[in-house]
Parts: sequence; structure tokens; C-alpha cells
Amino acid sequence: MPKFYFEDFAPGWTIELGPRRVTREEIIGYAARYDPQPMHLDEEAARHTMLGGLAASGWHTCAIMMKMIADGFLLDTASMGAPGVEEAKWLKPVRPGDSLTVRGSVRAARASQSKPDRGFVTLHWEVFNQRGDKVMTLTCPQMIQRRRAGAA
Amino acid sequence: MPKFYFEDFAPGWTIELGPRRVTREEIIGYAARYDPQPMHLDEEAARHTMLGGLAASGWHTCAIMMKMIADGFLLDTASMGAPGVEEAKWLKPVRPGDSLTVRGSVRAARASQSKPDRGFVTLHWEVFNQRGDKVMTLTCPQMIQRRRAGAA
Repeated sequence: MPKFYFEDFAPGWTIELGPRRVTREEIIGYAARYDPQPMHLDEEAARHTMLGGLAASGWHTCAIMMKMIADGFLLDTASMGAPGVEEAKWLKPVRPGDSLTVRGSVRAARASQSKPDRGFVTLHWEVFNQRGDKVMTLTCPQMIQRRRAGAA
Repeated sequence: MPKFYFEDFAPGWTIELGPRRVTREEIIGYAARYDPQPMHLDEEAARHTMLGGLAASGWHTCAIMMKMIADGFLLDTASMGAPGVEEAKWLKPVRPGDSLTVRGSVRAARASQSKPDRGFVTLHWEVFNQRGDKVMTLTCPQMIQRRRAGAA
């Protein structure tokens, strides 16, 4: 049974997740499977790219963050899915050995007009490395079931 | 040596990639690692969710598309990276056995004002399944090296 419903995600809600260490092996493993660009795949080749050394695919950072979000609260939430991404920014490289923390906050929340069983929450995510550098931000709408369908 | 530079990505440029078949095993494998929500992880549990059956994580669809883009032309392009995502929409579920094709087009292209060696291209991506349903769209800026730095 879910612990959290739409009503629990009002503006002001925040969460801190992690830290989560990122290894060289998983950076290369993800890249080989899904984003085989030299800066994500091979240390020597990466030195000659704009990133100046091996760094995680931006999509890999999204995936790591998603796992932290799922384990952190989403699996305990009456989520009805996410229709997409409003915006994502890859601000700094994520390096082998980096330890990531994620900070989430609610930007907006509104009950659905047409479907009384649910509401829409806009979540804003910031990812930091162990030095406090912001490496990524993500803004995502999330559909969440209401605890009391149709209540005011 | 790259084959494609900024000058090659004018509005009107299009590309078709795929088909690429998505298996049940990889849907579950990705979900276990990065997005362990029931609708991505377990057929029986997925039947009771809003997706009505097992479907790939939206982030997994992004990853599959990224690999098709890399293999399709990006590894032959003088890419200088992507600063993020302007917008992504997950429109329909991607099911086990689906065969995905990707259509890309250039929305906008402009040379950098401050850095004469590069330009910015806004790429729009659409992903279709074997029935022609549009399952996802993505709009992404891409930084690409100019063939002739500073030329008009």
C-alpha cells in the first residue's frame, strides 16, 4: 500500500537523497550499451574531448537519479506515471568515483480538473557531486493519485 | 575523422534510424538497475498499473534512442556535446517485442556568436513502434564543431 498521495506533495515539500557513488565500470558499461561516445567509453579518447576525461553519459546520470528517486520515495507513492520531461540540464561532468546527492522540491501542484482521482505535481531535481557542484537539474511533471478522490 | 560538421545540419535535414527490437529481458534488466517501478519490472504487477502491462521505463526508451542516434550518425559527427534536453514526451507504452524506428529533424541551427569554432543545432526526435504509433518525442540542443571556423 502506498504511503504517499497527491496531497502530500504541496509546494514546500523537499527531499534529500544519496549519496550514491558512481564507478568507472558502470560509466563504461552504460556507455557501451546506450551512449558509445568516446568521452563516456574510453579514458584515453576522452582526454581529447571537450570533457577532458572520462565522464558519465548525461542519460546515465538521469538513470542513476531515477533509481535514487524510486528507492527514496516513489515506490511508496501512489504514482500514476510521468508524461515526460519539462527540461533537463547537464551542467558539469560526472566523473568516476563521484558521489552524487539529489535534492528534490515541488514547484507546483494542482488537482486534475477532468479526473477527480488524481493530481499533477511538478518536481524539480538538482544533482550535486561531493564538492557541492551542481552537475544536473531536471524538471518533471508527475501524475499522482489523490488520497480522497474528488475531495476539495 | 568526423564526416559531418555544423554546416551539414541545416533546417530540412532529416534522418531515419532503425528498426530496433526491444526485448522483455532488456526492459526488466534496465528497470531492475535504474527504474524499479512495478510497471517496468514485473508482468503480473504491471497488469494492475495504469500501463495495463509490462512497458519500458521512459528513460530506457531515451537510452535506446540515444544508442540509435550514436550509431546512426553522431559518432561520425564533430559533436561537442549536448547541454541538456529541451523537452521529452512519453506518449505511449513501449512493450516487449516492439520494434522502434526513430525520425530526426533539424528545428533550428545557428553559429555561436562568442565561439567561432562551433554552432548550436536543435534536433527534434520522434520514436515510432511497428504499428506507426508515436511513442516518444524529444527536443535536444546539440553543440557541433564548424567545418570552417568563423566562416560566414
